Amino acid sequence: MTFAASIITLFPEAFPGTLGISLIGKALKESVWSLETVQLRDFGIGPHKNVDDTPAGGGAGMVLRADVAAAALDAAQGPADRPIIYLSPRGAPLTQEMAKTWAKGPGLVLFCGRFEGLDERVIEARSMQEVCVGEAVLAGGEAAALVLLEAVIRLLPGVLGNEASLSEESFENGLLEHPQYTRPRDFEGRPIPDVLMNGDHAKIAAWRRAERERLTVERRPDLAGGLFHGKPQPKGST
Amino acid sequence: MTFAASIITLFPEAFPGTLGISLIGKALKESVWSLETVQLRDFGIGPHKNVDDTPAGGGAGMVLRADVAAAALDAAQGPADRPIIYLSPRGAPLTQEMAKTWAKGPGLVLFCGRFEGLDERVIEARSMQEVCVGEAVLAGGEAAALVLLEAVIRLLPGVLGNEASLSEESFENGLLEHPQYTRPRDFEGRPIPDVLMNGDHAKIAAWRRAERERLTVERRPDLAGGLFHGKPQPKGST
Repeated sequence: MTFAASIITLFPEAFPGTLGISLIGKALKESVWSLETVQLRDFGIGPHKNVDDTPAGGGAGMVLRADVAAAALDAAQGPADRPIIYLSPRGAPLTQEMAKTWAKGPGLVLFCGRFEGLDERVIEARSMQEVCVGEAVLAGGEAAALVLLEAVIRLLPGVLGNEASLSEESFENGLLEHPQYTRPRDFEGRPIPDVLMNGDHAKIAAWRRAERERLTVERRPDLAGGLFHGKPQPKGST
Repeated sequence: MTFAASIITLFPEAFPGTLGISLIGKALKESVWSLETVQLRDFGIGPHKNVDDTPAGGGAGMVLRADVAAAALDAAQGPADRPIIYLSPRGAPLTQEMAKTWAKGPGLVLFCGRFEGLDERVIEARSMQEVCVGEAVLAGGEAAALVLLEAVIRLLPGVLGNEASLSEESFENGLLEHPQYTRPRDFEGRPIPDVLMNGDHAKIAAWRRAERERLTVERRPDLAGGLFHGKPQPKGST
């Protein structure tokens, strides 16, 4: 079954963008997944098709109208039971677990915010799930939507050629990935570590596991808790 | 001075993408910032311009070569003191503080990975800083580069029209943003909260502050520590 993505945006020209390249773009052409953009402006109010108005209670900027957003959301074509996601810095941070859950479902409806945000009432009325991508403020939700959909679509069956590599990647089992090396054997006086060159697969596996644990503890002590089986979690250096 | 962004990628057609729309795209046309893409393939080895090879020590997938990556990085045009960022799930999570720091600098060089990653030796030899955008695995670094650059470029002087709105946004002072409302007064039976309609600015400010604190504690207990001035941090519900 085709995974159906619908994106509500003032900038439909931003799509497919990075979702049109490489294997994910190939899967789009082959209808492994589908992409619909809905132009929010088409649902605007009055002769100027206004989509926003000043904040109730005052303040800087403009707020996207609930009625305009609801009309655009209701116009999206696809299975009725798709999660509706509002890309927002107030949301829950995107995780690999979310991506896995969504990849098993019928698709996603993504709402890309702009300006000071979206009227709270449509978030409630349409049970929108707020998700943020990275802990930094963006100008709008479009780039975040590209990241979120890429994380989901690469997990769909048939999208990536090499399914074996999926299971070894960062976040997939709570550890960051080990360092990688390839030819040439010497690069600017830096050799490939000997352990990787001697053909001893047990030693290589042990070295990689140790490197994954070391990197995770050093860089992401927040992820490293599971390593220690009840022992106190080490203080992180970052 | 123009903020100079250089992007090393196998997919230069993905840029400017979302960086070409709205006010950030306008600022690009007006040379508030500049964008250069460097095609990694141009620095590939042999008649097939190979950029990758099999992992030393075995394993699935392909690894980007250190010598090819170094040649592409060294060919980027711009100030020599720009930070070099490798977009990688092993990296430190992108934060608003990073964006602010980079926005004060001369620009950025971004390396977009693909396949199983980049030979560790070029990361070390070129002092590359590993950054991740969202805790999910992507097919490549391009969409993450769009997010990272958008977060930085919107902070450059002259890019956003309404500088006042910058200071009230999520993450800027460690609190998530309060709910926003605008016309119509009634949406599907849901009214705008009375407090926002009575014109009492002190009450409105107090309500918004309380909402920001409530949302931050509910959704992001990891950010909420600063709220409690030495009192124990509450257990998060998420």
